[in-house]
Amino acid sequence: MSISFNQKLEDICNRKNNRLCIGLDPDMACFPTTREKNFQSLENFIKEIISETIEFCPIYKPNFAFFERYGSKGFQILEKIKEFTDDRALVIADAKRADIGNTASKYAYAILDSMGYDAITISPYMGRDSIEPFIKNKSKGAFILCLTSNPGALEIQNNNDDIIPVYQRVAKIACELNINNNIGLVVGATQSKLMSNLRDSSTGLPWLIPGVGVQGGNLETSIENSNRLGIGIVNVSRSILYAEDGSIQSIVNSALKYTKKIRSIL
Amino acid sequence: MSISFNQKLEDICNRKNNRLCIGLDPDMACFPTTREKNFQSLENFIKEIISETIEFCPIYKPNFAFFERYGSKGFQILEKIKEFTDDRALVIADAKRADIGNTASKYAYAILDSMGYDAITISPYMGRDSIEPFIKNKSKGAFILCLTSNPGALEIQNNNDDIIPVYQRVAKIACELNINNNIGLVVGATQSKLMSNLRDSSTGLPWLIPGVGVQGGNLETSIENSNRLGIGIVNVSRSILYAEDGSIQSIVNSALKYTKKIRSIL
Repeated sequence: MSISFNQKLEDICNRKNNRLCIGLDPDMACFPTTREKNFQSLENFIKEIISETIEFCPIYKPNFAFFERYGSKGFQILEKIKEFTDDRALVIADAKRADIGNTASKYAYAILDSMGYDAITISPYMGRDSIEPFIKNKSKGAFILCLTSNPGALEIQNNNDDIIPVYQRVAKIACELNINNNIGLVVGATQSKLMSNLRDSSTGLPWLIPGVGVQGGNLETSIENSNRLGIGIVNVSRSILYAEDGSIQSIVNSALKYTKKIRSIL
Repeated sequence: MSISFNQKLEDICNRKNNRLCIGLDPDMACFPTTREKNFQSLENFIKEIISETIEFCPIYKPNFAFFERYGSKGFQILEKIKEFTDDRALVIADAKRADIGNTASKYAYAILDSMGYDAITISPYMGRDSIEPFIKNKSKGAFILCLTSNPGALEIQNNNDDIIPVYQRVAKIACELNINNNIGLVVGATQSKLMSNLRDSSTGLPWLIPGVGVQGGNLETSIENSNRLGIGIVNVSRSILYAEDGSIQSIVNSALKYTKKIRSIL
């Protein structure tokens, strides 16, 4: 019998004693002068980051926009990332897809089956039938946008005009759909005030937490809240990928620094 | 001075006296036996549909999922579609992207600038700062998901627990952001009961209406409501692409049949 995605996530986080997710948002414009600016170099950059951190990092999260901006050539790199990990880490496709069932099933096939990603981020605006095609296979996961990290998040997600805030409704739908134990929530690190309350209403669901680092979210609050009653993983992208002089050593050092901080909080 | 996207849309719809948008959701599994099942054949299929209908059809809408399911090779076809139209029609990327500003600007660059699409569909869950990167260039448009056509749409979009339904809040945000006259709404043809009311609160914004055809939405109600106080375009995908024997002649006949119906309602 196959193991559920949420169980795999818990296992690998515990085994590596870490909750760090390295966000792969590569931008050739930010490369140090020592790194060439071409597609092979971009691919090598991703490969190197993974191979040099996979000993201690349990999860990677390529942000699809940063590859699609290079067109089909960027997409070709996305197709190889799962392979780069050699099954020693989980890979979440940060693609924020969502559509009607017939179309959503095509996205699920593309990203989870064909490209082999372990999980995907999805937007819940279209309702539960737009989520279902992504969670049919219990060994693959879906992180549903719930409370996001951006400044304008709350206008839709937690509006004063709502009796039950939208983000709480999304959490409820996620819990109800989690029959295969493969659903998680995206909860921004900048939303520290609402975290405690949301953790109570999403018991057991893993959280994927962006917004630490450049966006200014709090690492301690994020790790503490999310790892009460579940697993919480913290994504860091720019603060690792473009650390100091941008060398692979600086990248590894930054990832290790976050790992150390996370371990001290756990 | 460049013309706004909404003005271009109105002009081409009036010039062709049509409101039909042909949805490009190609599926090799649905090809007739006379059509080969390979990438060149898929590309030719798209090219033929466009060249045989562009005389009377003002808009095409490739559904990204149906190309991404074929990986980077499918993405390569997406990169050519704008070219196939020779600027004789508008092309809307049905990609339903949305992310925090920094990431959204990469998607906007990829799809509107680099691939050259005239407009894109986007999800509003993350709020207005996730929409803004798509509407900076007034000659490019963004259709924001408002009321979608799928069975589960209303749980988030029009929940009884809301004082102001979410879809009405999205319409309000869309109107407020429409400074460059380049924002439209996605309104499902299956939502006929809510259309009249939504038209009043989205005066002037064009509507992109999916859900006619296989999904069972009403063409007459959709065209009438949307073309009061604005422009409304109706998307038809499967009922055209897989009409009768699947030959190009059947496809053209089906597109002409819809065009005739639309003209009689206008």
